[in-house]
Amino acid sequence: MTLAPSEDRFLFAEERPAEVAQHGVWKILIVDDEPEVHSVTRLALHDVVFAGRGLELISAHSAAEAEEVLHRHGDIAVILLDVVMETDNAGLELIRRIRDTMRNSATRIILRTGQPGQAPESDVIIRYDINDYREKTDLTSSHLFTAIYGALRAYRDINALEHHQDGLEEVIAATSALFECQTLRAFTRTAEDRFPKLLAKTTAGKFTNIDMIWARRINKDGFDVIAATGSLRPLAGCTKFADLPEMLIQRFEELEKAGSLVNGTWLGGLYRESSTLEYVFYMEGLHALTPTDRNLLDVYMRQATSAFDNLVLTQQIDETQREIVYRLGEAVESRSQETGNHVKRVAEISRLIARGAGLSPRDCDIIFYASPLHDVGKIAIPDAILNKAGKLTPEEWEIMKTHAIKGYEMLSNSERPILKAAAVIARDHHEKWDGSGYPEGRRGEEIDIMGRITAVADVFDALGSDRCYKKAWPLDDVLALFRHERGKHFDPHLVDILFDNLEAVTEIQQRYSD
Amino acid sequence: MTLAPSEDRFLFAEERPAEVAQHGVWKILIVDDEPEVHSVTRLALHDVVFAGRGLELISAHSAAEAEEVLHRHGDIAVILLDVVMETDNAGLELIRRIRDTMRNSATRIILRTGQPGQAPESDVIIRYDINDYREKTDLTSSHLFTAIYGALRAYRDINALEHHQDGLEEVIAATSALFECQTLRAFTRTAEDRFPKLLAKTTAGKFTNIDMIWARRINKDGFDVIAATGSLRPLAGCTKFADLPEMLIQRFEELEKAGSLVNGTWLGGLYRESSTLEYVFYMEGLHALTPTDRNLLDVYMRQATSAFDNLVLTQQIDETQREIVYRLGEAVESRSQETGNHVKRVAEISRLIARGAGLSPRDCDIIFYASPLHDVGKIAIPDAILNKAGKLTPEEWEIMKTHAIKGYEMLSNSERPILKAAAVIARDHHEKWDGSGYPEGRRGEEIDIMGRITAVADVFDALGSDRCYKKAWPLDDVLALFRHERGKHFDPHLVDILFDNLEAVTEIQQRYSD
Repeated sequence: MTLAPSEDRFLFAEERPAEVAQHGVWKILIVDDEPEVHSVTRLALHDVVFAGRGLELISAHSAAEAEEVLHRHGDIAVILLDVVMETDNAGLELIRRIRDTMRNSATRIILRTGQPGQAPESDVIIRYDINDYREKTDLTSSHLFTAIYGALRAYRDINALEHHQDGLEEVIAATSALFECQTLRAFTRTAEDRFPKLLAKTTAGKFTNIDMIWARRINKDGFDVIAATGSLRPLAGCTKFADLPEMLIQRFEELEKAGSLVNGTWLGGLYRESSTLEYVFYMEGLHALTPTDRNLLDVYMRQATSAFDNLVLTQQIDETQREIVYRLGEAVESRSQETGNHVKRVAEISRLIARGAGLSPRDCDIIFYASPLHDVGKIAIPDAILNKAGKLTPEEWEIMKTHAIKGYEMLSNSERPILKAAAVIARDHHEKWDGSGYPEGRRGEEIDIMGRITAVADVFDALGSDRCYKKAWPLDDVLALFRHERGKHFDPHLVDILFDNLEAVTEIQQRYSD
Repeated sequence: MTLAPSEDRFLFAEERPAEVAQHGVWKILIVDDEPEVHSVTRLALHDVVFAGRGLELISAHSAAEAEEVLHRHGDIAVILLDVVMETDNAGLELIRRIRDTMRNSATRIILRTGQPGQAPESDVIIRYDINDYREKTDLTSSHLFTAIYGALRAYRDINALEHHQDGLEEVIAATSALFECQTLRAFTRTAEDRFPKLLAKTTAGKFTNIDMIWARRINKDGFDVIAATGSLRPLAGCTKFADLPEMLIQRFEELEKAGSLVNGTWLGGLYRESSTLEYVFYMEGLHALTPTDRNLLDVYMRQATSAFDNLVLTQQIDETQREIVYRLGEAVESRSQETGNHVKRVAEISRLIARGAGLSPRDCDIIFYASPLHDVGKIAIPDAILNKAGKLTPEEWEIMKTHAIKGYEMLSNSERPILKAAAVIARDHHEKWDGSGYPEGRRGEEIDIMGRITAVADVFDALGSDRCYKKAWPLDDVLALFRHERGKHFDPHLVDILFDNLEAVTEIQQRYSD
């Protein structure tokens, strides 16, 4: 995906940014030790409306009380602050606490003094981070109105900028979280979890129950739901566009034409990746979003779509790799008359034992990818020997045994961890714990742990499966053999792990039965 | 990589945000048609200093002149604006143009009126987006000082927020660009290109020549330079930590202890991914960065590191896949006594022809990955036939020919595009343009294009290579055969493409010689 150039960044460019009706009030804190100042101020300001919102006037009669109010209310827009209260400069000290201790730089502070001599104007404005300085005598009703109006305007602008900044930071954090996801499931969970957090940063405020669906369309009819919340969550399993509710089909078709739409109570966007692939995003019930908010959502969706693309791509390469290994592992096995899903089961059982043995997640993945190639050296064994009906002569057996080292040679000298592991597994999977195996007669921990694990998985699964030359052994007989060979053929610790996980192993064998 | 929790988000948390000395001046625009107002204002404000910067007072004597000035100077902090000039409300009309037409909401506007009746205070403050309203008679020198100071404070705050917002938007855009990169080279170029753009959004302003290095360390000594600029660019090829200049080694060791540092003229960060892998970032000569700027850099580096990790991971899986295919393709070939790099050359030549034939980049990649598996069906051919010294009997030849369909069967029924393509290539690579090939005797465009391409690449490379049963043909003889078989064995158009690209084909054969 390519991001649109910056001039197209606004999702809804046709609309002009407009003042959106705001809910709530602007909180004004009056701090003064003279009761009369409070009543006069209330009288002057009681019917003020700014940007569609009225004022809530809160009174504090000392700096200490004011500080308490500020702790309770994080959203005071303007403080009308007296200087002389508990002490000669209680008001001035409060300013420092607000700006430095409480780290509140958004609230506008208008200093009102009755004794200008106490706090000389130019001195105070320089030393204290206030936004206006007025003498009480000078502050007529209409001047007070002007001062409050100007302060509210600045507060609104700063607040909007801080809000947008918070939103952008959430976009960055949410994008990071999405790019970290390694599985589609984790991705969906993260997208659903982060989305309300992002909306909470918009002017629309806090949401816990959003009706949202985000999906991928392939060839117009293939439909994958990436994330869905609220009343749209039941659509999560939908894989066909035509199976969607009629209402959604209509809206997606509108989006198809318009690219993006805000339509009363719903909002949607369409992100086209190619002629066959596009992403659609649809959300209900948020008519209060400003153009800035919608821009934020748009930026987020572009980033999130890019993260999703990335994950799908990586997963596809990954699954292709696994399938190539399975197919070729199977092809080799089928030449020696072993067919079906043996290599897949070996991969799964090996990973299970590796986890039980406490290998790192990365090593568990590596053995999962590499173990299907354990018999690859059989490519080099003549079929007269490989598929001989009777018992092998000692000479033939020597040739047969070379498949371990031939497999190692085919795969070694690679820089790739999976191929390195596959080479070692090919070499060591016929070694035995007591040193009686081949090709080198290594013993105990001299045998690579991945080789020891694959040996257990390979023999366990081979004994339990039908082959052209034998029937599957009953499970009890297989277990008896492993008990007997514990510490002889097999690493005793790994046999214990196998026994501890028999249920999961059986489940794997059923899932990938021949 | 996991992002640090939000409380750790600040790179340099030990430092308290401090006022950083700003260069330049604050521009104040005085708009008034009375010359005396200009001189009085200049007298009152000439020595004002705010946040370490003096004022530049610019005069305009009409609204029209003011508008011109505003177009020339994008960074006017405060306007002292008269109401009555060319017309009775020239000042008020100018406000609309500033806010609506010029979309400037940051500049603070202080309206100064000599005739309050002309523009009643509460009416004006409500209807026009101004930040202060004063009567000229009321505006003593000290009140003017206060008004300017308050306005500058608001302008500075809004400006800083807008700046930071720009920075965050650049972080998002730069991150997107990095996540789009498909190759390490493109990544480096993008990182080097975007970095000055990000710095230009900081308070440090514009930079064209930054001394920066960003690198990955594996096991303490392995060193990969991801991006390097300015005087540090010559280090781009460095792969060993110990080969760095002594000064950098010292500084990286300091970072190793401290995690991140700002140290006079340099700045660095260390991002630890695991016990063996970490990223270091180092930059010189930017002592003017504020804590906010450094936070921006930190957020960017975390995102960029994550993007880099992602790319490396995808590339590793990708290269592993290619190597598995090569190794197994080679193993199959080596069973039929064909050794060396034949399958690699087939992959490269096939991709080259595919490009010439105008296949999509994606299909060119697919044939590159899939064509090495064209002979995988030979796994199923008995070695008595596969490696027979003399001529095959007609019965043996029939068995030999089954390798095409056996390869198809091994690989078909997959959902993976690469495996689908490999299956079709295995099936069709012995078909001939004139219909005389096998297994199905398809002709012309009935033969899959990828099969036709691989046929040309396979035969061309096999003829030109030594085999145990023959010497390599001279190039002229190979070309003569292709000229003769053009339109018979081979798709004539593809033969033309091969001839048009002989130089590149020869280069491939030399690069991957046996």
